[in-house]
Amino acid sequence: MAEILPMNNQKSASDTAIKTLQALVADDMAEVNEAILSRMESPVALIPQLAGHLIAAGGKRLRPMLTLASSKLIGYEGKRQIQLAACVEFIHTATLLHDDVVDESDMRRGNKTANAIYGNQPCVLVGDFLFSRSFELMIEDGSLKVLKILSSASSIIAEGEVMQLMRSHDLKTTEEQYLEVIAAKTAALFAAACEISGVISEQGEDVEQALANYGQYLGIAFQLVDDVLDYSAKQATMGKSVGDDFKEGKITLPVILSYRRGDDAERKFWRTTMEDQKQNENDLAQATAFMNQHGALNDTIKRAHHYGDKAKDALAIFPDNDARKALIGIVDFCINRAY
Amino acid sequence: MAEILPMNNQKSASDTAIKTLQALVADDMAEVNEAILSRMESPVALIPQLAGHLIAAGGKRLRPMLTLASSKLIGYEGKRQIQLAACVEFIHTATLLHDDVVDESDMRRGNKTANAIYGNQPCVLVGDFLFSRSFELMIEDGSLKVLKILSSASSIIAEGEVMQLMRSHDLKTTEEQYLEVIAAKTAALFAAACEISGVISEQGEDVEQALANYGQYLGIAFQLVDDVLDYSAKQATMGKSVGDDFKEGKITLPVILSYRRGDDAERKFWRTTMEDQKQNENDLAQATAFMNQHGALNDTIKRAHHYGDKAKDALAIFPDNDARKALIGIVDFCINRAY
Repeated sequence: MAEILPMNNQKSASDTAIKTLQALVADDMAEVNEAILSRMESPVALIPQLAGHLIAAGGKRLRPMLTLASSKLIGYEGKRQIQLAACVEFIHTATLLHDDVVDESDMRRGNKTANAIYGNQPCVLVGDFLFSRSFELMIEDGSLKVLKILSSASSIIAEGEVMQLMRSHDLKTTEEQYLEVIAAKTAALFAAACEISGVISEQGEDVEQALANYGQYLGIAFQLVDDVLDYSAKQATMGKSVGDDFKEGKITLPVILSYRRGDDAERKFWRTTMEDQKQNENDLAQATAFMNQHGALNDTIKRAHHYGDKAKDALAIFPDNDARKALIGIVDFCINRAY
Repeated sequence: MAEILPMNNQKSASDTAIKTLQALVADDMAEVNEAILSRMESPVALIPQLAGHLIAAGGKRLRPMLTLASSKLIGYEGKRQIQLAACVEFIHTATLLHDDVVDESDMRRGNKTANAIYGNQPCVLVGDFLFSRSFELMIEDGSLKVLKILSSASSIIAEGEVMQLMRSHDLKTTEEQYLEVIAAKTAALFAAACEISGVISEQGEDVEQALANYGQYLGIAFQLVDDVLDYSAKQATMGKSVGDDFKEGKITLPVILSYRRGDDAERKFWRTTMEDQKQNENDLAQATAFMNQHGALNDTIKRAHHYGDKAKDALAIFPDNDARKALIGIVDFCINRAY
């Protein structure tokens, strides 16, 4: 992807950002990991085995880190953030398990997906188990407000996923409709992960709202960049398969922009490949070439910057402490993954 | 199934039983249906459409009826049972949607399953939506104890389903292990549906425990009979497909008993058909013949009677009112479905 130039300064700054955040929450995260491992236990051996496949595979635990860092941001001194961060990760893991069934993906984060190894059936059920278990953990915490935020986020995630499914292959999807999908399927959990820290710290609606806004905008930026990465050569270096969205006919912003900006011949190409799902082995390269030609990937990243800026501004009401610096840094980290 | 004689008296008594129960809770059930319809709404059109397919298809709404009748049994005079009964039905519906994906079933209650019409993907997601929505309804109700009972039941259901999946094709499954599976996958929700009425009526642990026991035993009896029906000619008259369990290699009590009681040649038959999943078109009839020969279907019904009796006895602490009569009648109804 020649048009997106490596920006080494940004890259090393964002490496520092994720490390800063990880260091900030390291102690809490050790406890979260312990909670995750102990609470995904079940006498039914396949459950921890399958859940462990996904949870051990790692990822950065970005969402629970947001809960932990938000708690630090506002000087919360209790322990409730630990168990709630574990809840957030369980909801996320359940969603991934069901997504992989839905997407019929074979690879995630450079590893075989759980459904490729275990089949769809156990993935659906273990997803259900983790989801139920996350509610059990919230109920132990005991806050109806936290429960409300996370259960509402869960409904919204499912709505977003269904919306996305309905818009698959539909090139008439507008940027606004696409944003509605990613706000629901991705950003809602980011927002909830941050907002619940505001609730347990009991500092009022303004704090909760600011944290929710930060998470919401960050989540949108994150997903926009994810959608760029699916067409990016860099993705391959991360061990993630490239072109999954294209193969599935998933309508993401780079496609929407390219289709709108393309001429008749290009639009025909998009209809054949995305709507009719007739693809040959050169089509992914051709699609990426059209995207670059119209600046669709770079402009998607520009949109991500727009939401990233709003995420940072949402933090303006908080004191300029280490946690705020880390949360601002993580916005850059999420966006700079594209480079 | 020649060995199970039609017992006309029992049959008409149990028809009366379900009608008595339906009449008892008719007013409340109208409100529950309204709550179900209004709360499965979503701006994402496919969600109410798909959920409606299953919810409109009917079934008897046995589980929410249990919540309503239990509330009457103990003289509860509030309105909370309405919304909670809707929760119970949402959890049940979510489970069915995921089960059909897991089972890859084409027919349910004489109708095409949702996944046969819409595909697996939306069924997984709409199941997730209904499940999240059920928690939202519980949270509106506001009782952490109710939340705990229903979230714990949900975890247990998922564990039971995974257990069943792990024991598929495994003829070494014992009756005890099978009972553990059905106690989890089926009876846990029956138990929770009854127990929550005890909680909202605030009559103490004994009442809650008695209701939970009633539901638990009834659920086990119900599932035992369901497993018999899958080998029963009567099933066809209900529009339900026969032999699904056999085709899937699901190890139910009729199979366990037949395998244990069979000679070497029979055991070889079971291993070929259930473990190796090599089946020809006469094998279902052969399996049913072996079951009848060893009384496996009748004995499974006998076991159901055992649990049904315990369910009735669990109600001994309650006054002998119309609701108690109806709840006792429903035990017979559940078992007499076999005839």
